[in-house]
Amino acid sequence: MAPHDEAVKVAEETTGTVSKPISTIVIIIAMQTEALPLVTKFNLVEDPNSVFPKGVPWVRYYGTYKDLNINIIWPGKDPALGVDCVGTVSASLVTYASIQALQPDLIINAGTAGGFKEKGAGIGDVYVASDVAFHDRRIPIPVFDLYGVCAKRALSTPNLLKELNLKVGKLSTGDSLDMSPIDEKSITANDATVKDMEGAAVAYVAELLSVPTIFVKAVTDIVDGDKPTAEEFLQNLIAVTAALDQAVTRVVEFVNGKCVAEL
Amino acid sequence: MAPHDEAVKVAEETTGTVSKPISTIVIIIAMQTEALPLVTKFNLVEDPNSVFPKGVPWVRYYGTYKDLNINIIWPGKDPALGVDCVGTVSASLVTYASIQALQPDLIINAGTAGGFKEKGAGIGDVYVASDVAFHDRRIPIPVFDLYGVCAKRALSTPNLLKELNLKVGKLSTGDSLDMSPIDEKSITANDATVKDMEGAAVAYVAELLSVPTIFVKAVTDIVDGDKPTAEEFLQNLIAVTAALDQAVTRVVEFVNGKCVAEL
Repeated sequence: MAPHDEAVKVAEETTGTVSKPISTIVIIIAMQTEALPLVTKFNLVEDPNSVFPKGVPWVRYYGTYKDLNINIIWPGKDPALGVDCVGTVSASLVTYASIQALQPDLIINAGTAGGFKEKGAGIGDVYVASDVAFHDRRIPIPVFDLYGVCAKRALSTPNLLKELNLKVGKLSTGDSLDMSPIDEKSITANDATVKDMEGAAVAYVAELLSVPTIFVKAVTDIVDGDKPTAEEFLQNLIAVTAALDQAVTRVVEFVNGKCVAEL
Repeated sequence: MAPHDEAVKVAEETTGTVSKPISTIVIIIAMQTEALPLVTKFNLVEDPNSVFPKGVPWVRYYGTYKDLNINIIWPGKDPALGVDCVGTVSASLVTYASIQALQPDLIINAGTAGGFKEKGAGIGDVYVASDVAFHDRRIPIPVFDLYGVCAKRALSTPNLLKELNLKVGKLSTGDSLDMSPIDEKSITANDATVKDMEGAAVAYVAELLSVPTIFVKAVTDIVDGDKPTAEEFLQNLIAVTAALDQAVTRVVEFVNGKCVAEL
């Protein structure tokens, strides 16, 4: 193919992705408690013939809702320990495998998060991330330091934010539920309002494979508050999940019938 | 198929995997500096038609050496920043994608590492890991704490260890090159002699997909020594890579013609 034709083809493909209505969405949710109310809400069913290889615990719930093919991907329970496969390794793997198997037009990474009251976060608040970055990948060698932090802008969704009146803040991701002093320094450097355990890993893979992604995070615990994180997280998980799922439902309703450029 | 036949089939498959000579190996190496001498040594070529999807920077070098199909997988350079894609997210992704594409009989994860002199490690020592675990995934909720650490025994290779006279120690993995006080506590709890940025992620994925894995780690810097890690790492990288590559070559020579159960 001549260079000119190739250029036209690329332009058409790019325009096509952005201007055609969103058809297939993948919603990545790390915990079953967070995922199941949405599975019920959208009347999804578990895939009896997994699109994922033998051995992995990853679960796909799927169905159609209005004009959308909806897939909720939950990384499942650890085969040996029986707890949800939270964190960046599982999140990156299911993002990669879901994109390969389902070729979504849009990813929504939804989950609970810690919030910083100093930045205005309160329990039950739902945030859409404007930016994502890691806070526990310190590589003090020039340029490697930036690779470790891996700061990225999330998909710009001005119309969605205006219509749904959701809060907006920066998201910082790490593999620990707690926050060590050195993590705190990095989170401050990331200017984060919310802190989770998956977002930046999902963002990294989705960007490599060019899939636009929205991050919806609901605050279960105040990181700079008085209560121990694990205790506060478990106390609020069920109630805050209701707020999270309501917000995700509104995002899905808004996405339906639109193309990415209209979000 | 009747349950009995299924059981026989599974037994045959299991026996087959362990008792047939190793044919295809995947060597996962995070840094180009570590990988290229081995590419030359085994006379491998870069795959012109990548087995990986468009967009990812992962590179496969392949060829045959004696009775083995050898694949060296290097996660490549970050598309935006141009540095090697080190760390657990890239390591888990290339392990997953390599297993899917190449169905190896054995994985070797080779790389440089920090060593603890208190545990007997010195610059240039090459270790085979007996155990792997994470040290930067703190989730202080019962059972989730164990999931975070994700401690696993590596493949038992008594004959290889005896023949090659390599050191043996426990490996602890985290996404930072430095060691924070809270990381140190976890590394001590993991009883680690060597510390890297990929091993436990490779182990996690390889175990999910039932591929036996050997970890070969060469010490570039003394974590509990006087010198700053980044400086010592860069100073010793080239020289220690020679020791690493020599050890990996000896492992490959030993593996050739054997089945997994003979290692």
